[in-house]
Amino acid sequence: MKLPIAIGATEAPARTKPSNYPEPFASRMKGRTKRPLGDLFGLSNFGANLTTLEPGAVSALQHRHTLQDEFVYVLEGKAVLVTGDIETVLGAGMCAGFKAGGASHHLENRSDVPVTYLEIGDRTKGDEVSYPADDLVGELGPQGWVFRHKDGSPY
Amino acid sequence: MKLPIAIGATEAPARTKPSNYPEPFASRMKGRTKRPLGDLFGLSNFGANLTTLEPGAVSALQHRHTLQDEFVYVLEGKAVLVTGDIETVLGAGMCAGFKAGGASHHLENRSDVPVTYLEIGDRTKGDEVSYPADDLVGELGPQGWVFRHKDGSPY
Repeated sequence: MKLPIAIGATEAPARTKPSNYPEPFASRMKGRTKRPLGDLFGLSNFGANLTTLEPGAVSALQHRHTLQDEFVYVLEGKAVLVTGDIETVLGAGMCAGFKAGGASHHLENRSDVPVTYLEIGDRTKGDEVSYPADDLVGELGPQGWVFRHKDGSPY
Repeated sequence: MKLPIAIGATEAPARTKPSNYPEPFASRMKGRTKRPLGDLFGLSNFGANLTTLEPGAVSALQHRHTLQDEFVYVLEGKAVLVTGDIETVLGAGMCAGFKAGGASHHLENRSDVPVTYLEIGDRTKGDEVSYPADDLVGELGPQGWVFRHKDGSPY
């Protein structure tokens, strides 16, 4: 497949599978649209998405990675970043980074207009994700993400 | 050091060393300002910079990496992306990715106003950079980037 040289980010196709989570968590990602950008150019070391949250939508469950770093930059609208118990409003031009092993976090759109941001995350193998508020753990295996209950049983 | 939760990207301090290149190449980076963002949050797997090119400035020498992927997203102004022999104008909201081992590339500001973009690059060890138009090769060693002439002699 011939890779493009450049693209208007809003023209990138939305991800066909809206969430990798098992139910009931996948349904909680309603109103979130991710447009993978890095993948379009054949990048494999990190992902870069243009993500839009409709009013009421969230970026992900509150989570933290063991090995992968994450970074977000808000392009339009306002998101509430929830980091542990701390809430910070991110407007356009603001950014935040989430180092591996740091505090759990996610973004919420509590406004009445969409919020759009760029999100970057590397793809370090062997990564695990924990979700302090939900009965879920994730592990990046050779076939992709595998999710289980906290007691290790499958969904 | 206590890490910030979030920051307005334009408030991030500019890199104190404007270029890692030896002369005469470092001087060719005049008019380029990089504000490291990911480093502020303690990220180590990839770098994320807010970079501004004044009129006439360039993002880097034309180059390609052997192992590291790169991604740019234009926030303001217009940059000319030179990929091998192909020129593509990138306006605000456009993005491009440069996979490891792909075509050589850089951005030029040929306009009369600044251009500002986000640039992301991972930090895969053992990376090497080649510069088709310049007598320079770079290698990411344990102490950081080491630059030599193409015949291997030091600068």
